[in-house]
Amino acid sequence: MDRKRLDQVRTAMAAAGLDALVCRLPENVLLLSGHWPLIGWSFLLFPREGSPLIVVPHCDEREAREELWEADSESFIFGVLTGGNPYEDIARALKARIAGKGYRRVGFEGNFECVAPPWNAAEPAIPAAATRGLLEAVIGSDYLVDATDFLNAQRARKTPLEQAKLRTANEIAALGLQAFREKAAVGVSGIDLVAHVEHTIVTRGPGHNGARRVRAFAQVSTGATETVIAYRPMVISTPRPMESGDLAVLEMAVVADGFWSDRTRAAVAGQPSGEQKRAFEAVRRAQEAAIEAIRPGVTAAEVDAAARGVIHAAGYDDEAFLHVTGHGLGLRYHEPTPLICPGGETVLEEGMVHTVEPGLYVPGMGGIRLEENVIVTATGCEVMGPCDKGLECAS
Amino acid sequence: MDRKRLDQVRTAMAAAGLDALVCRLPENVLLLSGHWPLIGWSFLLFPREGSPLIVVPHCDEREAREELWEADSESFIFGVLTGGNPYEDIARALKARIAGKGYRRVGFEGNFECVAPPWNAAEPAIPAAATRGLLEAVIGSDYLVDATDFLNAQRARKTPLEQAKLRTANEIAALGLQAFREKAAVGVSGIDLVAHVEHTIVTRGPGHNGARRVRAFAQVSTGATETVIAYRPMVISTPRPMESGDLAVLEMAVVADGFWSDRTRAAVAGQPSGEQKRAFEAVRRAQEAAIEAIRPGVTAAEVDAAARGVIHAAGYDDEAFLHVTGHGLGLRYHEPTPLICPGGETVLEEGMVHTVEPGLYVPGMGGIRLEENVIVTATGCEVMGPCDKGLECAS
Repeated sequence: MDRKRLDQVRTAMAAAGLDALVCRLPENVLLLSGHWPLIGWSFLLFPREGSPLIVVPHCDEREAREELWEADSESFIFGVLTGGNPYEDIARALKARIAGKGYRRVGFEGNFECVAPPWNAAEPAIPAAATRGLLEAVIGSDYLVDATDFLNAQRARKTPLEQAKLRTANEIAALGLQAFREKAAVGVSGIDLVAHVEHTIVTRGPGHNGARRVRAFAQVSTGATETVIAYRPMVISTPRPMESGDLAVLEMAVVADGFWSDRTRAAVAGQPSGEQKRAFEAVRRAQEAAIEAIRPGVTAAEVDAAARGVIHAAGYDDEAFLHVTGHGLGLRYHEPTPLICPGGETVLEEGMVHTVEPGLYVPGMGGIRLEENVIVTATGCEVMGPCDKGLECAS
Repeated sequence: MDRKRLDQVRTAMAAAGLDALVCRLPENVLLLSGHWPLIGWSFLLFPREGSPLIVVPHCDEREAREELWEADSESFIFGVLTGGNPYEDIARALKARIAGKGYRRVGFEGNFECVAPPWNAAEPAIPAAATRGLLEAVIGSDYLVDATDFLNAQRARKTPLEQAKLRTANEIAALGLQAFREKAAVGVSGIDLVAHVEHTIVTRGPGHNGARRVRAFAQVSTGATETVIAYRPMVISTPRPMESGDLAVLEMAVVADGFWSDRTRAAVAGQPSGEQKRAFEAVRRAQEAAIEAIRPGVTAAEVDAAARGVIHAAGYDDEAFLHVTGHGLGLRYHEPTPLICPGGETVLEEGMVHTVEPGLYVPGMGGIRLEENVIVTATGCEVMGPCDKGLECAS
């Protein structure tokens, strides 16, 4: 059980005057209960005082039983002929639980516009009008408070247990990064690399430190034209075989039991050019400088400047390094705090988790990015799931 | 361009008194524009009269240009240092477009609680309070109408172009089904099968009929204890090697350029038992009976009864076949219409697309399900992406 998480949230709820939270997004259900929903139909009522109640579809019941820290659990039939209306079943269970409690301020997930999928990433379930109607009927519209900012603030610092889960996700991710470097070669395509990396994660991730539900989402851009836009959130991998000198950039999300990693590597098929080597060294040193700068008390802007200064000193400007140095993550691929960017005012605190991902994108040459995930420690930071990062392919 | 889709929607908008639709969910943007958003930050204003406007993040701009049928397009900077507030950029573009138009009823996506992810399935973007605020600021809260039911109704029948896209997704899915049967064997685990099937789809899907963005989401349950609950939306694949006589059930979603397939196969490692063969034959014949029954004018209940009658006649009851015979799908893994279930009142119409997926789940033996995706034609139905379905492994 993550006693520290529960105590911190309850203390913050008291300060914010929240009597309870009610969540259905998998990322927040996991945060507050230990259970990562399979299909996104688990509703958690988390009171400031007393036991939480989780209402789960019967198809998630076994995993809920195995994963939940402390919560009374009720289930409803879902997806089979004997099932009823899930909203009615959920409302009944929640209503019985809050009857007589006199909650005056109940926080809900009103403004998550980017969400982590449940284990069933093919069809996320999300709160829209029906969930809002359910909550209004159960709790009363006057008593509902948007807790999006509250929940994000809670998530900005990870507990030791959450850090351990993120370390596992990153160690699994490192298996994929290694597989990328071993497979990248002349004649291999971006799609070949995606398939190989995802296959590696899916087969070798489960069982690592007890991880059970593991999936990777990889994209590999190849060649100068594709990699020069590899700063974009999505670049489409192609079946075109790499030629000698082609850059490949792997961007990869890995989820292990609801905890996310976000990593990047670059490699060159055949011999890297002098220009590619120089750019790679600038990116590598920028990343090292940022990692060196991270510790509690420094601002996000200072960390960004450490990386950006190396890039500038190497002769590249912000048109070549046109994105932030890092962003928060953990229970989602991207989290809002901290944002490691020019002018970033967030003061780093122990337990924050973020990416460090300088990159260079130069027309004609292509793009290179290296991305690690770090935990801010008492004296500096820990790079999770360490893994080689040479530009040369390992094959 | 899907002229038929656009004409139908505009006719229905006139009947419903809708002046315009505004969508950001990838499934509806695709439906009305031909463009499948990469990251879910494309906003489409689709007026009943005049040209649509799509506002896309610059990272999606190239694909939007290649895929859009007819729409004016504006882009905003997203995810790099020079970007602003995307909501402000999107609002400005939409506001300029609707100025002076006098729209009194604009439909929005108010109640989609299950959604198809964008191409970036690792982090879907969804409409919550911020999107609602944007729409209220641009359009006026008095003029916004929830168009969820309207959009679902439009999607119940697929146009010939949409059918072609779904055929492609199902042909790609068939490659995965075939790979499953070839790989399933004693000593192979559910996770091995998931990885192999997904690898096959990711490498062989792109290029098939021009498909560019292809991904599979597979789950393989193995053995009697796991497969007997394989009717659940999610069963977790394990690394346990199959033993002789173990059943394996593959449940798989495939997406190809935003169009979804939902298929299932079962196989036995080694020699199937007599009981397994009998159950398989009942499921196979139930599926054939349902497929035989499908044509315009019959009700969903009649199709369900055709399948269920075979199951009952074979000596199994609804505790063994405890789920529906089928559901709609197309721009999402599951769509609400038609639902092929006992008492289902929907009258099938030409162009509807749904699954046909009888299954049997017998304690001690395990579970068996076969799932095809069909298009209702003028005289019957077309099974898309046909593929062998023997219980014996092909290896």
